[in-house]
Amino acid sequence: MQLEKTRFEQFSDGVIAIAITLLALELHVPRLFTNTIHASIHELAPLLPNILTFALSFITIAIFWVNHHQLTKPVAKVSRRMLWANILFLLFLTLIPFSTSVLSVNPWHPTALLTYSLVLFLASVWFSVLRYFVHKSCGDIHIPMRRSFVGPTFYLLAVISAFFSVPLCAAILVIPPLFYFLPKSSMRHDI
Amino acid sequence: MQLEKTRFEQFSDGVIAIAITLLALELHVPRLFTNTIHASIHELAPLLPNILTFALSFITIAIFWVNHHQLTKPVAKVSRRMLWANILFLLFLTLIPFSTSVLSVNPWHPTALLTYSLVLFLASVWFSVLRYFVHKSCGDIHIPMRRSFVGPTFYLLAVISAFFSVPLCAAILVIPPLFYFLPKSSMRHDI
Amino acid sequence: MQLEKTRFEQFSDGVIAIAITLLALELHVPRLFTNTIHASIHELAPLLPNILTFALSFITIAIFWVNHHQLTKPVAKVSRRMLWANILFLLFLTLIPFSTSVLSVNPWHPTALLTYSLVLFLASVWFSVLRYFVHKSCGDIHIPMRRSFVGPTFYLLAVISAFFSVPLCAAILVIPPLFYFLPKSSMRHDI
Amino acid sequence: MQLEKTRFEQFSDGVIAIAITLLALELHVPRLFTNTIHASIHELAPLLPNILTFALSFITIAIFWVNHHQLTKPVAKVSRRMLWANILFLLFLTLIPFSTSVLSVNPWHPTALLTYSLVLFLASVWFSVLRYFVHKSCGDIHIPMRRSFVGPTFYLLAVISAFFSVPLCAAILVIPPLFYFLPKSSMRHDI
Repeated sequence: MQLEKTRFEQFSDGVIAIAITLLALELHVPRLFTNTIHASIHELAPLLPNILTFALSFITIAIFWVNHHQLTKPVAKVSRRMLWANILFLLFLTLIPFSTSVLSVNPWHPTALLTYSLVLFLASVWFSVLRYFVHKSCGDIHIPMRRSFVGPTFYLLAVISAFFSVPLCAAILVIPPLFYFLPKSSMRHDI
Repeated sequence: MQLEKTRFEQFSDGVIAIAITLLALELHVPRLFTNTIHASIHELAPLLPNILTFALSFITIAIFWVNHHQLTKPVAKVSRRMLWANILFLLFLTLIPFSTSVLSVNPWHPTALLTYSLVLFLASVWFSVLRYFVHKSCGDIHIPMRRSFVGPTFYLLAVISAFFSVPLCAAILVIPPLFYFLPKSSMRHDI
Repeated sequence: MQLEKTRFEQFSDGVIAIAITLLALELHVPRLFTNTIHASIHELAPLLPNILTFALSFITIAIFWVNHHQLTKPVAKVSRRMLWANILFLLFLTLIPFSTSVLSVNPWHPTALLTYSLVLFLASVWFSVLRYFVHKSCGDIHIPMRRSFVGPTFYLLAVISAFFSVPLCAAILVIPPLFYFLPKSSMRHDI
Repeated sequence: MQLEKTRFEQFSDGVIAIAITLLALELHVPRLFTNTIHASIHELAPLLPNILTFALSFITIAIFWVNHHQLTKPVAKVSRRMLWANILFLLFLTLIPFSTSVLSVNPWHPTALLTYSLVLFLASVWFSVLRYFVHKSCGDIHIPMRRSFVGPTFYLLAVISAFFSVPLCAAILVIPPLFYFLPKSSMRHDI
């Protein structure tokens, strides 16, 4: 027996929508001790890296959602293997608010960047496994496999670079979203 | 390839429904130290501005949802530009529970009002960008562009007034929802 | 222009599903200091009223959901008045996890019971207003108006009794759900 | 009057999607005090049992969702009894993030394992009750009742063993998910 695609997509959309909204919940609400805007800017300054991490995680999850949508579009029947690749993808996706929070609490700490990169690496690996199963079941030429290597490769490089250089790791983490927005790239997604 | 409208709307509805429900989660639960209702009123009094901010944020998000629904109704195909204007709109919308919480923790603080106004300003700007793309793609006379200036204009005034006057800023923040409920206004939304 | 019923229902379902799930999030996780099950029972005992309040809130929200479903079933077009009665109903519904938490933090405190009763009273009032608008638009004999008085009446009695007697107030709060499950009652809901 | 299946499924999916995503929210975000990855490994080590509990809960909820989907597929009309068996199933399912958190805060504590097992036992009992009502209403040979005993039996064994042996209880909790993935088992689910 196979799963209905509608409920499969709705469940995935639900989990992704909750994960992306919970990102903002992890932002630390500051209690301000000075009375003017000018003075409190110094109090808010430490929030800036958190806001940037929040934005990076938001855009990354949004790209996962767009790609997920595009991937499941041609699927007629959801197989058991697709189902479980998807569940494992969602498992690591729901860890993104956690790893974002680890990075917010410990900004620029190599272990926090390692955790953040590792979660994204594992999410992108399972997304590629899902893509592989969809590809095999559809034989669809619109789902080129080389796309599947962009995410896992860069996030693996980020994991490795976390051991050597914090700025390098942070820089690599920004590449996959940029890749997505590159115009005319042969790997550019259609949506 | 273009996005299916159904999944686009469901994802947006999911994110908006979660954001609006999380508002209540940010309300601080008081531990009461007196034993009678009469005595504890004094303990609960500081909660009043939080309740009012919660109600204002709830109504504001609800109006965004109603407008979003009305906007996407005539859309046949979701373009890449609509998709990303919508994602950036949702990014700032998910920050509303955070900025509401900043205002609850620091009531009447100019920086908290500035943060709150700024988030609403950016959400309304991206909503207007989304409206512009929908307008261009539909050429629909039912989506008048002047509506797009109400939200951004008032929220920009709120941002500016936060630097000068706290009560003025608070007053301006209440205007866009009131505008929505104005009877017979030419800019009144149909729903 | 009128709202599509599907999106109206999905948004309401989303908010209700999140509110009902957040109830469990408000349960305080105990850190146990003794090593055996037998000894830790005493540590867990204070959790019991919280568990009961959680169960009462869960069943109450579930009944609201079932009634909401039954109410909107015959609706063909969602009017502006239905929409806003529904949004105000949802506003008070999303406060139920908060008021449940107030009651958990301050068990048997009259003010906590007052808050809890007041939120349920306001949610049931707006639900009745919604029922009235649906009734007027449908003229449907399957939506008897006398049902609309059960919730508001009992929750108003609970609000009033909170000023006099804590056990009486707690007892009254259990009545509306029991009413729902009464067999053969003329006001019994069909689902 | 009977409930529409679509809204019944969507509400269940919503609650399950939120519960599964909230699991990650209960993970404690560590503040690191050492500067290198090597040194901080020791700080992160206590997180490992939490991560394993998170993964076990995630997979367990995912299996509940897959089974729920498979179960409601042949349902034509949702009866009042199915509805309330489902609501009680969801009540205990939403307690899984709470019981996971109890286990994370008190790793290897017998009472925490007892709580965790009890919640899963009650969720699986109500799921079996739901399966029984669906079975009776459909008379469908594709819903064999013996499946209904796997979950409740093992989780009851886990509850009992929590009083005697912590490792035994933990081991039993892993069996039902393994059962699900067993190849060629006569009780293996089709998806």
